[in-house]
Amino acid sequence: MPTLPPLPPTIIEPMVRRALDEDFGNSGDLTANLLVPEKARNKLYMKAREAGVIAGMQAAQMTYAMVDPKVKFTVKKGDGSKVKKGDIIAIVDGPVRSLLSAERVALNFLGRMSGVATLTSQYVAKVKKHKVRIAATRKTTPGLRALEKQAVLAGGGYKHRESLAAAIMIKDNHIALAGGVDKALKTIAKKADHMARISVEVDTLAQLKKVLKYAPHVILLDNMNAAMLMKAVAIVDDYDGPRPVLEASGGVNLETVAGLAATGIDVISIGALTHSAPNFDIGMDAA
Amino acid sequence: MPTLPPLPPTIIEPMVRRALDEDFGNSGDLTANLLVPEKARNKLYMKAREAGVIAGMQAAQMTYAMVDPKVKFTVKKGDGSKVKKGDIIAIVDGPVRSLLSAERVALNFLGRMSGVATLTSQYVAKVKKHKVRIAATRKTTPGLRALEKQAVLAGGGYKHRESLAAAIMIKDNHIALAGGVDKALKTIAKKADHMARISVEVDTLAQLKKVLKYAPHVILLDNMNAAMLMKAVAIVDDYDGPRPVLEASGGVNLETVAGLAATGIDVISIGALTHSAPNFDIGMDAA
Amino acid sequence: MPTLPPLPPTIIEPMVRRALDEDFGNSGDLTANLLVPEKARNKLYMKAREAGVIAGMQAAQMTYAMVDPKVKFTVKKGDGSKVKKGDIIAIVDGPVRSLLSAERVALNFLGRMSGVATLTSQYVAKVKKHKVRIAATRKTTPGLRALEKQAVLAGGGYKHRESLAAAIMIKDNHIALAGGVDKALKTIAKKADHMARISVEVDTLAQLKKVLKYAPHVILLDNMNAAMLMKAVAIVDDYDGPRPVLEASGGVNLETVAGLAATGIDVISIGALTHSAPNFDIGMDAA
Amino acid sequence: MPTLPPLPPTIIEPMVRRALDEDFGNSGDLTANLLVPEKARNKLYMKAREAGVIAGMQAAQMTYAMVDPKVKFTVKKGDGSKVKKGDIIAIVDGPVRSLLSAERVALNFLGRMSGVATLTSQYVAKVKKHKVRIAATRKTTPGLRALEKQAVLAGGGYKHRESLAAAIMIKDNHIALAGGVDKALKTIAKKADHMARISVEVDTLAQLKKVLKYAPHVILLDNMNAAMLMKAVAIVDDYDGPRPVLEASGGVNLETVAGLAATGIDVISIGALTHSAPNFDIGMDAA
Amino acid sequence: MPTLPPLPPTIIEPMVRRALDEDFGNSGDLTANLLVPEKARNKLYMKAREAGVIAGMQAAQMTYAMVDPKVKFTVKKGDGSKVKKGDIIAIVDGPVRSLLSAERVALNFLGRMSGVATLTSQYVAKVKKHKVRIAATRKTTPGLRALEKQAVLAGGGYKHRESLAAAIMIKDNHIALAGGVDKALKTIAKKADHMARISVEVDTLAQLKKVLKYAPHVILLDNMNAAMLMKAVAIVDDYDGPRPVLEASGGVNLETVAGLAATGIDVISIGALTHSAPNFDIGMDAA
Amino acid sequence: MPTLPPLPPTIIEPMVRRALDEDFGNSGDLTANLLVPEKARNKLYMKAREAGVIAGMQAAQMTYAMVDPKVKFTVKKGDGSKVKKGDIIAIVDGPVRSLLSAERVALNFLGRMSGVATLTSQYVAKVKKHKVRIAATRKTTPGLRALEKQAVLAGGGYKHRESLAAAIMIKDNHIALAGGVDKALKTIAKKADHMARISVEVDTLAQLKKVLKYAPHVILLDNMNAAMLMKAVAIVDDYDGPRPVLEASGGVNLETVAGLAATGIDVISIGALTHSAPNFDIGMDAA
Repeated sequence: MPTLPPLPPTIIEPMVRRALDEDFGNSGDLTANLLVPEKARNKLYMKAREAGVIAGMQAAQMTYAMVDPKVKFTVKKGDGSKVKKGDIIAIVDGPVRSLLSAERVALNFLGRMSGVATLTSQYVAKVKKHKVRIAATRKTTPGLRALEKQAVLAGGGYKHRESLAAAIMIKDNHIALAGGVDKALKTIAKKADHMARISVEVDTLAQLKKVLKYAPHVILLDNMNAAMLMKAVAIVDDYDGPRPVLEASGGVNLETVAGLAATGIDVISIGALTHSAPNFDIGMDAA
Repeated sequence: MPTLPPLPPTIIEPMVRRALDEDFGNSGDLTANLLVPEKARNKLYMKAREAGVIAGMQAAQMTYAMVDPKVKFTVKKGDGSKVKKGDIIAIVDGPVRSLLSAERVALNFLGRMSGVATLTSQYVAKVKKHKVRIAATRKTTPGLRALEKQAVLAGGGYKHRESLAAAIMIKDNHIALAGGVDKALKTIAKKADHMARISVEVDTLAQLKKVLKYAPHVILLDNMNAAMLMKAVAIVDDYDGPRPVLEASGGVNLETVAGLAATGIDVISIGALTHSAPNFDIGMDAA
Repeated sequence: MPTLPPLPPTIIEPMVRRALDEDFGNSGDLTANLLVPEKARNKLYMKAREAGVIAGMQAAQMTYAMVDPKVKFTVKKGDGSKVKKGDIIAIVDGPVRSLLSAERVALNFLGRMSGVATLTSQYVAKVKKHKVRIAATRKTTPGLRALEKQAVLAGGGYKHRESLAAAIMIKDNHIALAGGVDKALKTIAKKADHMARISVEVDTLAQLKKVLKYAPHVILLDNMNAAMLMKAVAIVDDYDGPRPVLEASGGVNLETVAGLAATGIDVISIGALTHSAPNFDIGMDAA
Repeated sequence: MPTLPPLPPTIIEPMVRRALDEDFGNSGDLTANLLVPEKARNKLYMKAREAGVIAGMQAAQMTYAMVDPKVKFTVKKGDGSKVKKGDIIAIVDGPVRSLLSAERVALNFLGRMSGVATLTSQYVAKVKKHKVRIAATRKTTPGLRALEKQAVLAGGGYKHRESLAAAIMIKDNHIALAGGVDKALKTIAKKADHMARISVEVDTLAQLKKVLKYAPHVILLDNMNAAMLMKAVAIVDDYDGPRPVLEASGGVNLETVAGLAATGIDVISIGALTHSAPNFDIGMDAA
Repeated sequence: MPTLPPLPPTIIEPMVRRALDEDFGNSGDLTANLLVPEKARNKLYMKAREAGVIAGMQAAQMTYAMVDPKVKFTVKKGDGSKVKKGDIIAIVDGPVRSLLSAERVALNFLGRMSGVATLTSQYVAKVKKHKVRIAATRKTTPGLRALEKQAVLAGGGYKHRESLAAAIMIKDNHIALAGGVDKALKTIAKKADHMARISVEVDTLAQLKKVLKYAPHVILLDNMNAAMLMKAVAIVDDYDGPRPVLEASGGVNLETVAGLAATGIDVISIGALTHSAPNFDIGMDAA
Repeated sequence: MPTLPPLPPTIIEPMVRRALDEDFGNSGDLTANLLVPEKARNKLYMKAREAGVIAGMQAAQMTYAMVDPKVKFTVKKGDGSKVKKGDIIAIVDGPVRSLLSAERVALNFLGRMSGVATLTSQYVAKVKKHKVRIAATRKTTPGLRALEKQAVLAGGGYKHRESLAAAIMIKDNHIALAGGVDKALKTIAKKADHMARISVEVDTLAQLKKVLKYAPHVILLDNMNAAMLMKAVAIVDDYDGPRPVLEASGGVNLETVAGLAATGIDVISIGALTHSAPNFDIGMDAA
């Protein structure tokens, strides 16, 4: 499996710092400090308690580094690795006090991000016969977008728009306020940056036909079922001009996704990847 | 319904700031800025798209306040309110550019926190015939613990330990490293702060009997099924000394929780409340 | 003149805070505090001391707001306004101590950003007969990118890539390391996000021909003179496929820019707009 | 050449962090991550593309350290070094992804600061026959004052007042508001800290004579031409009391500076050193 | 002497950073930079100039690490060590510029925290014949609570409530506003978290009797003299129910503390430990 | 009494924020939230419980503003006001929950800063017959220097050096490392900024005589008793050159200060003002 490029440490470090701040309060781990001898050293194993895909390893590793540089952290299963129940994903080796103090924060990162990666991989598996891509949205957990998008990559998905500032996505209300689709798309053509990608959302096939002639880079087919998506793809295939990327979105779940993928669309974007992924269960064991 | 005391604004503000920073990048909402006229004013309605319990309203309100103080934000359903599908939960009224620019971040807070509150309320409903409490754990989303614990309160649950620094929770590995349960609990009695609450985790009934004589404030019965919990309660009821709070934890779900509650324990703590709550669906509508 | 959409306040506030921190040290304006009576009120006028285009007004206004909310700040010439020598661009009215304490920081923002806007407007004026756009680059002052890109907009230019994360720009060394142009562009097609804009840099006409068939969104013609650019435009015009945006860059100055613009390219990007704009002179006068 | 004392790392680190934050967005360098193999190692050379004086090297070095500690950064020309076109100023050696990801931010620091140093050195060269000093002002780029003042030192200049809190500079409006020059200077004598340096600005020779008797440490001769400065120097030379430092300011440029220096004044302070220095061109080459 | 568990570095680092920021301004140590040769290396000794107990060593060590990692810092007397006049408590060895630049900040931390530890140890010594504990309060220096509580531990005292969020302390005004003591304590029993420790403050013996039946974990006997405390202890000893911890507070000083301790109470909490401890004198010597 | 100029809010705000963060943890004031009804409004009076001088009022006011803008805060005795026991110094009026939640932090600021102001005023009173000034040093509480220096002003004292970056203070070890006093002072004359104030520390009268000819602005007479200081003053009075400011320091206390002041020196600097001032007792009462 190709290794996932890591995020820059400057992006992750403030996330880890906040997590430690909220868990350490004004004094850190009372229990470990009172009961664990200063000299006690040990090796603990982080193990998957279910099958899935790992993500969040950078944050877990940085958590230990910020709590105690004397802890040796060995990654066994990096971001994007498929694991089965019982697999060792990382080993921490060092002063026991530090091993225990940092455990919850490290596991919270790993559990959440591996949950996102695992859910993504389930969607990806459902559509593997098709050329379609599974993509995240901006429906991410506040403050953790970078890690969650990385987790989507780990699961085999794609990241979508970086931020409100990185691309243009035109929706119904933008069009209405701009004075109609023609006026809106002319304004965009005139004012948008040449490095900005432009996407337009349509709810009906009529709208689709209307926007095609403005050659947006992406057309977002919102809340359409498979039958309607098939018609949309046919319209675009028939259109004699530059082919936009076709993205479907809305009401997608693990049951419906394969059907949508079969319609010939290019991308299916799914908020649930990041906003509703259940935790992936990882434990810390002595052996 | 009694109003939930708000969190101090200084706790929420940095969370909102980070969420805006990651969504605004270096320039904010390109699309709204290009297409929405500066003077356009409107009123938009946040509506529940399913039934549940609301939380995260303070963060949503602060999001709008930080994006544009000219937006008037009216709360219709504050934290802890039960809503049904279609209920208006808040109204935002002001410059349309600002209404749209802040929408995703505000909804991300509301969706996640109302998800936690709603899941909590489902657990609470399952055990309402019993005196038991449903409590969260430290398995919270990194950087959002304060809001998530508030959401648990909104759902009718309880918060549990503030941080590693706020109470003592003694687990297996602590006891092993401290040289046995006797030595561990004597050390705690001698060194722990008089304001620190002390909890001991036990995995077996034998351990339970052993720790009872040290009069810990709370005993955490880890991963026991209903039958075993019943025996644990009986042991404690028979014990002639101060009665500890009995907390059960591990492997709890919406199917099993009522059975556990019926055993007579005092508290059931559930990591899933905060780490695996699905998003609560809220939309922004023009009317 | 159409009003420029403002930047979100959360983007500007930390920039202003840092500027005030470095100018106030541990105590603020010693001189004003010792010599200006607490009750003294006045009205001061910020005036252009040369002709140009204004930018940075949001930061100047926020500077005063953060120093003293009792100061009334009236914008006379907002971002993007053309001014002539002597024009009043803003009025500050309130406690004199605060007027003086905040002056330098406010003028430093206005001077730098209006300098960028003015230089941009000079380039824009040189090419106004052509359809070409003048665009900034990532060669911005560390920590001030958002304001400087806004200043480029104020001067009639365009912003270009938001950050390294917002679009893909493939240069020589990327191609070499990826194993050649074919391999590089195939990798990009497979892995790049569907919302990512893709630009490829070419140094020669041979390279231009080679990359055309991969239909990149933008081709950056690096360091080509007008004659060569004309040939490049001709090659692209002759090419039977989707037309990329043609961007020229490198060695552009106020003397050469019109000649380059006349070649038919779409965009000229210029690092000097942000990295070498001289300060725009603004004074603070009593009347 | 004597080495310039470095700035404390705690001053530079937040500047570098902000620059990286704005360039990395939520994910870092998309292009390098997609195209450059994880294992690729290389050595790149930062080279001066023009003659001048280097500054900003600490920030450049810290940029690489924060992006990837595996990159080896070798300084060839530290702050204050004179370089000619083609000189290697630093070498970066390590993972190519990191070399490319950090390049722009590192060069932005070096380009801006070496620009300040180079312009300063040009002023210093013009006055080298005289005892006069070239000094910066508080007209620095918001958020970068520490680095820009360091760059002025690198160019052979002097730093001037640290902040509004570090010294007293009395200007026209202070005197007016304090009730006249006598009252103002008596107030200062009574209230100013014994560690505070005191400077008074004068616009005319009459004012100069008036303030001399209050023995300010520095007199700032504002906007005077060479003829007038000569008279000012003569007045001070004739005065029978402690000699203040004489500083000239206003309307200084590379053409006029030598003439001003010849008048016998002690210091010439120039805002343009920091607010209008053009970028110094540095490239990153493979050999 | 058992070693005191260190605070997590993430708690201390921001405190040290702020202290360095306020002492370094925009450029650091002017004097050392001008006078101390870059190559000068030396070893300096921090010595106690009086007898007492050391605390704050972690902050001092981190101060040097943040100023210059080349400085070797050797702890001779860690937190909690008793020292006599002349004892070497730490050695710093490295570039002299760095040794001097960081000295004041490091000594400010050590002086303040050792002052707290020493004062605490004096109270502890006064009561050593009794089982009573000496505890701090929330009357700590703003921004330094974590270090000051650690210093109290170093002096042999106890920390008390972590924060307003970590335990419940019910005072007069709470009771009045809640509608009387019965209503207040019933509300607490119903709503307070099972992990929250509950303390009630009483001013009179009548109040003491009233609250006993609600079995609070701690009763704070406010502003009672020894005679009254003795009566309070007798009342509690006679009471047939779970024994609360008895804490005395108010008007305690080094003269009165032994008398209070003799009454049989469990804890004496003293604001002066943290808000009025005089500095502990530490010097930096060459040998 | 002349009003003390306030500190810029940007300096105080981060100090208040940190203090609130450490007292509020992840949820704020548990007790007030559980027991005080949401609608309860009240007026509370901050009263001096001893005689002294008030300082820290800005921080106290900002504490309440950050906790709850609905609280009305009325200053009765601003910074620098002399108060007697029982005087009302401020009134807070608003929601009781907020009044109680912010109380401790506000009082911690007021208690510490009024302690510094009061101690300063005691020193000032002792020397009021002499022209001497009482000044602080850099021995301030880490993170609170700005407020503590302001408190010294409130008590009638002076602030001294802003930071290591704001003035030059040459001590023994600097001179030794620079190669002797002549070399050191020549280096300073050549390299120090014209806006930097220069102070030299001497331990003996021989040293005093030696440094006089270099005309430092300030001479710090370290650890000299009154007899020796008198001789020092005589030496300086006899010296035929610019008179430096004479500052005494070391071993000063409330008993010795008047004797030192009588020697004719200009300034007495005292670390104890900021590092050893006992808390000033302020209570919060209902009437």
